[in-house]
Amino acid sequence: MLGIAGDSAAGKTTLTRGIVNVFGAERVTAVCVDDYHRYDREQRKELTITPLNPECNYIGIMEQHLRLLAAGETILKPVYGHSHGTLEAPELIEPRDIVVIEGLLPYHTKAMRHCFDVKVYLDPPEDLRRRWKITRDCTKRNYDEEQVLADLERREPDSEAFIRPQREHADIVVRFHPPGPSLDVDAATLDVRVVLRPVLPHPYLMELAEKTRVRSFEPIRISLARDGGKPADVMEVQGSMPSDVSATVEDIIWEGMGLDGHDLQRDAIGSFQDGEKTRRSESLALTQLLLVAQTASAKDNG
Amino acid sequence: MLGIAGDSAAGKTTLTRGIVNVFGAERVTAVCVDDYHRYDREQRKELTITPLNPECNYIGIMEQHLRLLAAGETILKPVYGHSHGTLEAPELIEPRDIVVIEGLLPYHTKAMRHCFDVKVYLDPPEDLRRRWKITRDCTKRNYDEEQVLADLERREPDSEAFIRPQREHADIVVRFHPPGPSLDVDAATLDVRVVLRPVLPHPYLMELAEKTRVRSFEPIRISLARDGGKPADVMEVQGSMPSDVSATVEDIIWEGMGLDGHDLQRDAIGSFQDGEKTRRSESLALTQLLLVAQTASAKDNG
Repeated sequence: MLGIAGDSAAGKTTLTRGIVNVFGAERVTAVCVDDYHRYDREQRKELTITPLNPECNYIGIMEQHLRLLAAGETILKPVYGHSHGTLEAPELIEPRDIVVIEGLLPYHTKAMRHCFDVKVYLDPPEDLRRRWKITRDCTKRNYDEEQVLADLERREPDSEAFIRPQREHADIVVRFHPPGPSLDVDAATLDVRVVLRPVLPHPYLMELAEKTRVRSFEPIRISLARDGGKPADVMEVQGSMPSDVSATVEDIIWEGMGLDGHDLQRDAIGSFQDGEKTRRSESLALTQLLLVAQTASAKDNG
Repeated sequence: MLGIAGDSAAGKTTLTRGIVNVFGAERVTAVCVDDYHRYDREQRKELTITPLNPECNYIGIMEQHLRLLAAGETILKPVYGHSHGTLEAPELIEPRDIVVIEGLLPYHTKAMRHCFDVKVYLDPPEDLRRRWKITRDCTKRNYDEEQVLADLERREPDSEAFIRPQREHADIVVRFHPPGPSLDVDAATLDVRVVLRPVLPHPYLMELAEKTRVRSFEPIRISLARDGGKPADVMEVQGSMPSDVSATVEDIIWEGMGLDGHDLQRDAIGSFQDGEKTRRSESLALTQLLLVAQTASAKDNG
């Protein structure tokens, strides 16, 4: 079971989509734990509680359902209608070969964390995430910009108290970020910094860096670093990497996984929404493939 | 965990209400498994499937939830809106001291049957049940009489295939019936015939019959009988029993349970809806008390 946690509009759905595509939708069950909201949008307004607050969610049921899914049992999952903020009739979820759990609070309790084979946390810079949230909520969730800004303000204490503390429980922390200080860059060229905690094996990492280096050009760099005071591998990937280099990297990962790279639809990964357009990001593609490799290897060893 | 199964309008809710009242609502969690409908009224019409059909219900989830409740775990139960036949947002159910499960199909699978301490099946004569169903569905569920009759017709094959076979899995079979051949009797004077399978202890039965006999007047008769070919105790209670005799019987049951009869609100049991009026039936009251005794004793020995 793979977890993808992160604050609102941190990129969870985009990241998940490529992973589902690689395995094939018929092999994957993707569940969003934000469906476990206890109150609808109206009730939250009355109670002045944000959906980031565990009190606003059926945490005990979330825990129970993660446990059941991890044990291969079908669940009847609650449904939250994001477009109008209403609680709806529940739906049956049968766990397939691969289960991906994404949402705001999947690592909130110890029992929940124990259900996962691989725990990912999405950690974009706050200013980038805010920009993403404004775009998303205004186009897809019937809010206007002023509302979203007020919402971000209101949510900040809960983000700090409940969302960001989950970062330290993740095995892999993913941070898409602009190469420089400005946010005004082509979204397809964001770099990514991936912190890989030594709790999982990452056998192909050094090979990746080595084989993709062309003289002084190092599109992928691996380094030792401390994260939260503890040693970790850090992989940094240039978003502006040429696509043939990216293809080489993908081949190395597939070989490292012992799988036939020809099975992979190259356009299954790396795609994201940029306004009306669907575009491709090499750093996103590689991140997704890395998570696929981790999930597949956790499954084989599980 | 106490189960109360039976066909539509067999009297499940009426029977359950008194049991809840005796224990006190704060000690009882009552769940209706008809909430596990998979399709709403519209969808059922399109699929020409009745709610009595296991295919029309989330049977696997029902099984899982009964297991969780029996283990003391909270569940998020689906909700079926009877008045308009719609699937609604689920609700949190925390199992209290006593859990009562009522509905159409609580004993459908072996795993479900294993969750119960006491399994009751309501088995009124078909013509009486049909009359009850017409009254109930027309006054509370927005149907007209013609619709209910057509519905009964449509449901009969599923009643035969799925509902009535559950009777043989019950520990206690309860049949309210008119004393004679006519249905046109005061509903408060229905007799009741209770089949008690020897799977549960019924230590006070003989005493009940003995202590309530006044010369040749025997308001409660216990006899040995075969039910489905197997030996069972049968208790027959006259609905027209004077209320002082009924009070004596109640005292005997309470004493037999080792509980203080003074705790019991006499008007907590035996009440039923007769049109607009709430009335009392002695046979209903005694049946409810008997089930309370069985549930309490199963709990003590569990």
